[in-house]
Amino acid sequence: MLVNSRVVRIEWGDCDPAGIVYYPRYFAFFDASTSALLERALGMTKDDYLKAYDFAGHPLVDTQSRFLIPTRFGDDVTIESGVTAVHRSSFDIHHRLLKHGALAVEGLETRVWVQGDPKAGRMKATPMPQAVVDRLSKR
Amino acid sequence: MLVNSRVVRIEWGDCDPAGIVYYPRYFAFFDASTSALLERALGMTKDDYLKAYDFAGHPLVDTQSRFLIPTRFGDDVTIESGVTAVHRSSFDIHHRLLKHGALAVEGLETRVWVQGDPKAGRMKATPMPQAVVDRLSKR
Amino acid sequence: MLVNSRVVRIEWGDCDPAGIVYYPRYFAFFDASTSALLERALGMTKDDYLKAYDFAGHPLVDTQSRFLIPTRFGDDVTIESGVTAVHRSSFDIHHRLLKHGALAVEGLETRVWVQGDPKAGRMKATPMPQAVVDRLSKR
Amino acid sequence: MLVNSRVVRIEWGDCDPAGIVYYPRYFAFFDASTSALLERALGMTKDDYLKAYDFAGHPLVDTQSRFLIPTRFGDDVTIESGVTAVHRSSFDIHHRLLKHGALAVEGLETRVWVQGDPKAGRMKATPMPQAVVDRLSKR
Repeated sequence: MLVNSRVVRIEWGDCDPAGIVYYPRYFAFFDASTSALLERALGMTKDDYLKAYDFAGHPLVDTQSRFLIPTRFGDDVTIESGVTAVHRSSFDIHHRLLKHGALAVEGLETRVWVQGDPKAGRMKATPMPQAVVDRLSKR
Repeated sequence: MLVNSRVVRIEWGDCDPAGIVYYPRYFAFFDASTSALLERALGMTKDDYLKAYDFAGHPLVDTQSRFLIPTRFGDDVTIESGVTAVHRSSFDIHHRLLKHGALAVEGLETRVWVQGDPKAGRMKATPMPQAVVDRLSKR
Repeated sequence: MLVNSRVVRIEWGDCDPAGIVYYPRYFAFFDASTSALLERALGMTKDDYLKAYDFAGHPLVDTQSRFLIPTRFGDDVTIESGVTAVHRSSFDIHHRLLKHGALAVEGLETRVWVQGDPKAGRMKATPMPQAVVDRLSKR
Repeated sequence: MLVNSRVVRIEWGDCDPAGIVYYPRYFAFFDASTSALLERALGMTKDDYLKAYDFAGHPLVDTQSRFLIPTRFGDDVTIESGVTAVHRSSFDIHHRLLKHGALAVEGLETRVWVQGDPKAGRMKATPMPQAVVDRLSKR
């Protein structure tokens, strides 16, 4: 399974009055991790891969998350993101956010490959190019 | 089931380069909706209910979401949030985000009632006061 | 001077570990207030006015802010936003954020009217249409 | 002048429908840069320096910014942050955000050293400890 790992510093501004991460921020971290994973798999920047494959993005259609250990500002966490399944026009990602090596947050995502103009309200799942399927399926 | 409904205007800054909502923002909307639901159930502001029941908050431990229809800046969406289950030290919330009456995003949350100081890394699930259980269970 | 006023509820997630607003959120509030002011002045939604006048937006080029009174989650603040000057291809906005009637935050912005495709790195100040100048200058 | 430099990757989620950075995000970058600068000057983490000097934080009281060149997702920008003045109970910071070596955004901040409990609405400027003044004034 293709896995990308990156380190994220939890900032003061990522935290809420309880002093722990405001959980919507985890989804921002995961979204950036998904893009980083695709950049690595496809060998180009997001800006470039959106153009190269002429598609409108890979919006989330489904997500599940578990929050096991709180994180705080100053923590450096590691996010490991892997492609767990590749379908015709969608793919699944598994994120594991680790704090000092322990699983703190886990996220599952299903992303769909879309074409059309989201701004005009037209956005349609479309089969992923074979090259993308191959690269995301690589073990 | 106790349900609270509120209208949220999707702003330009809630949207990403595809022109649709950047999905972590939905979780910010849902978090505020959960607080609003509790404020309504408990008959006091969040600031007051944290003090009145002397607890550290109701962090999320589990969430599932489905994204069915994209929303865009300028959309006024309605979020209906209800308590679907009340356990000993946790409760479940169901959010339905509607656009022009159609279900656009759905979110399920399990929240735990915690005591202790999250800033010191000490945070422990604790049984909810009976008054809270009663109010959240009201039909 | 054209002034638009709106009420914003400060949410838990807008606040930092000190329990007060994380100041970048004020700029998000101000940005939405500027759009609301333009929507009112031009009599159409942002989505519509971007199309009607065929321009790429009104990015900020300059801002100054003062933070006088902290705000906290649960506060309902009022933001009064007015056009203070209209230039050839830019305009100035003054935001006053009030808490219980007292000035809590003040923001000055200069916005420029741009054309071109920001995504392609091409964005150019362009004279505002006379109809826009007239509407923003209305007293 | 003490200067700290760090690189920030502009993410998809930092950008708005125009495809360029949603400017409140710059203030989030600057806030984290100020904390990083203080961590470096004081030789400890933010969590530790808040405790070591027993204060409530260094909220912003005044900021000025200029936005010269737009940045986009995928850009790696450098933020250079320096202490430009140290007063009795406040200090000034100058941030320069560079894109490919060119000044893209500039920010000036005045931060005040406060004690008391911001959550209780009590927050008071207090003279900075001499050790802090010395370290921030170092050339």
